[in-house]
Amino acid sequence: MVQLTALSRNDAGIETALGILKQRFGDRMQTGTSVRQQHAHTTTWIANQPPDAVVFPRDTEEVAEIVKICATHKVPVVPFGTGTSLEGHVNAPGGGISVDMAEMNHILTVHAEDLDVVVQPGVTREQLNTHLRDQGLFFPIDPGANASLGGMTATRASGTNAVRYGTMKDNVLALEAVMPDGRVIRTAQRAKKTSAGYDLTRLLVGSEGTLGLITEITLKLQGIPEAIRSARCSFPSVDAACRTVMAVIQYGVPVARIELLDALQVRAVNAYSKLNLPETPLLLLEFHGSDASVAEQAETFGALAEEFGASGYEATSSTEDRNRLWQARHDAYWASLQLRPGAQGISTDVCVPISRLAECVGRAQEKAAELDLLAPIVGHVGDGNFHSLVLIDMDQPKEVARADQFVGWLNEMAIEMDGTCTGEHGIGQGKMRYLTRELGEATDVMVAIKQALDPDNIMNPGKIVAL
Amino acid sequence: MVQLTALSRNDAGIETALGILKQRFGDRMQTGTSVRQQHAHTTTWIANQPPDAVVFPRDTEEVAEIVKICATHKVPVVPFGTGTSLEGHVNAPGGGISVDMAEMNHILTVHAEDLDVVVQPGVTREQLNTHLRDQGLFFPIDPGANASLGGMTATRASGTNAVRYGTMKDNVLALEAVMPDGRVIRTAQRAKKTSAGYDLTRLLVGSEGTLGLITEITLKLQGIPEAIRSARCSFPSVDAACRTVMAVIQYGVPVARIELLDALQVRAVNAYSKLNLPETPLLLLEFHGSDASVAEQAETFGALAEEFGASGYEATSSTEDRNRLWQARHDAYWASLQLRPGAQGISTDVCVPISRLAECVGRAQEKAAELDLLAPIVGHVGDGNFHSLVLIDMDQPKEVARADQFVGWLNEMAIEMDGTCTGEHGIGQGKMRYLTRELGEATDVMVAIKQALDPDNIMNPGKIVAL
Repeated sequence: MVQLTALSRNDAGIETALGILKQRFGDRMQTGTSVRQQHAHTTTWIANQPPDAVVFPRDTEEVAEIVKICATHKVPVVPFGTGTSLEGHVNAPGGGISVDMAEMNHILTVHAEDLDVVVQPGVTREQLNTHLRDQGLFFPIDPGANASLGGMTATRASGTNAVRYGTMKDNVLALEAVMPDGRVIRTAQRAKKTSAGYDLTRLLVGSEGTLGLITEITLKLQGIPEAIRSARCSFPSVDAACRTVMAVIQYGVPVARIELLDALQVRAVNAYSKLNLPETPLLLLEFHGSDASVAEQAETFGALAEEFGASGYEATSSTEDRNRLWQARHDAYWASLQLRPGAQGISTDVCVPISRLAECVGRAQEKAAELDLLAPIVGHVGDGNFHSLVLIDMDQPKEVARADQFVGWLNEMAIEMDGTCTGEHGIGQGKMRYLTRELGEATDVMVAIKQALDPDNIMNPGKIVAL
Repeated sequence: MVQLTALSRNDAGIETALGILKQRFGDRMQTGTSVRQQHAHTTTWIANQPPDAVVFPRDTEEVAEIVKICATHKVPVVPFGTGTSLEGHVNAPGGGISVDMAEMNHILTVHAEDLDVVVQPGVTREQLNTHLRDQGLFFPIDPGANASLGGMTATRASGTNAVRYGTMKDNVLALEAVMPDGRVIRTAQRAKKTSAGYDLTRLLVGSEGTLGLITEITLKLQGIPEAIRSARCSFPSVDAACRTVMAVIQYGVPVARIELLDALQVRAVNAYSKLNLPETPLLLLEFHGSDASVAEQAETFGALAEEFGASGYEATSSTEDRNRLWQARHDAYWASLQLRPGAQGISTDVCVPISRLAECVGRAQEKAAELDLLAPIVGHVGDGNFHSLVLIDMDQPKEVARADQFVGWLNEMAIEMDGTCTGEHGIGQGKMRYLTRELGEATDVMVAIKQALDPDNIMNPGKIVAL
């Protein structure tokens, strides 16, 4: 279990800042216990460390005001989107102000000809895609949860479509951000490429609110494909499924999604979503393109899968069938929880070179069995990224300890395989203990950047790097 | 013309460092005038500012040694690849040591299953692609010149394939770099995605040697497509060509290259490459995919182009025809110089949102005519990126002044159109004067990062940001 050290609190500064903010924001600053706890909500086993107040700004100027007040009085500022992050990103270990972006949820400008859009950080990905649909456009990054685009940017999120469309780092063109001293910067213009100086866009993407608060995001868009085809097939082993994935990638099939569910996960999904999938490792796929192209992709995939012993291959372009299949995938988390009602699900996230994926998944399954843990696996396997969801009874300290041992072991194995302790969830509080092991002295460079830009350590302190 | 201010020289430190380096590197340190001038070679109008010595390291440890010696004595360190950069990146305005990566030209490991490769920075892109061909793999970024991969990384290069495969920022998985204090860091592991802390990989990509010296690069690779098809067609106007490009991108045709040559550039290419292309705006294209897919792409493109009044559409899969066409495109620079033998070619680089491209190109043509300048245009128009090559007689001060006026005007217009003063060449010395105009206070953040990581300003000083 993640041991959290509370940061030392600047009580005097916090009290002063609260007074000023209350006067300025009135009812848009809240200090009730439940709203504060909800804003330190973690969907995992990390303890709740609530902020002292939650403020709901409406525009960039208000965010800059909040940050300036907090900077003057050296008070922590913690950005909040929808609270779906998994590694304690929204916790406030030193107290301070949670800045909830819920009211900054406007889609500012769609540049359809340029395939980009400018949004405020509180816009959610489903809200954006609903807005874009009539124009034949979509935003491809899909982490599962209906997260805010500000949060997705801050954690460098990705998900099921990343194998084709990349992660947030590939889909953010420019950012507006309030820096730790309250200055507002724009990191780039709206051109599709740039070599103009240091890539501040990419520095802020994935910085988890520790370097600045994102107040506006310019995102790349895609045209909705002419045709979409989904497919599934079952494999005799995880190894056979992973070998198929490698072949598909090598072959250059531009697959849009390629997801692995292990046998235990398929069992969970069958029960929860009333499906009858064979309870062996399963690949779910989606192909985007022209009618001819998706047909060819599906056919090529089918032939490759057969070589690796796949069975039950089914492809469909029916919207209804597609949605049913992908709904089951998106419900995998809830389905897993039903494998053990009442249990807490601990989702951990590793990513390895694809050549090591089968071994990594296989060893994770063995280790979970050895430690007597129930831990179904789902993976964005085209990228070598997978999650174990460890189902534990938080009232059983020995079981919690075994889960902790498992998570640590898995993250270290991924690092040893030249992979990372987080492919998409971020470091937050939960993965700080692995970061130095993964990147060594590079973390000193991160500390130097953090100290240069945020010398008083007010921006989401206690995340990514310890100061 | 770019006015250069020489940085103040640390003569005593340089003398001491030269003595130590000579003892350590012997003949692998050179101080002859011609080798020094060659290492400050600029292919444009920026004056030559040679380093005091050139050192040829063989491995990371030697680079770290050089940097440590220079750090101790506060001596500038300027990395050198093949010298094809265009904005004075390899100049040594404060003197110091040029670190030539020519002997660090080993392809270290090809991970064919993972579609990645680890190379030293002196490997050139042609060398890499020759090495990979037998394995059915290729590295897609093609800036035209046979640049070193270290230099391409440092300048965030791109070129003709970027519309499909992205730029260097999208194709570097991880870096090893020697930091300003001589420490060696690795920015990431080899996993295809990561959310592990600040994106130091992207911070170093495009940092032009000002934050660290790149000593190892892990690059993404692609499978050589099953089929490649080239096409060309002529347009009645730049506007019609640009509208076609927008339609192609909107339509989601996964075009691999889409290049614009304006009428003047076509005239130059006809003369130089003995072709008979109609002397009107021309698009050159390349499609990658399966046999069926490239046929479909070429057909879709042809239909779209026809709607915008294109003529002379020809598509071919013959390797010989393809090579002839693309050779002409790659020779565009040399062809242009022959429009005015003896002239100096000044290549400037802007990138705008694609909806502004036709207007930007059109106004650039008008402005060049108004200033009586010969300035053919080529563009990676799928990304909204184009280059004007201004052909000037450097002995005519009034003409040089008009060219300077043109370049400044063009860069500012691109910035006003929400574009950038450099899509792919980088800031170097030549574009420093536009950077603040483009990004405002964000450049202060760049300065803060530079000062935090390189407090003595020894890493390629006088580039990107002024300290």
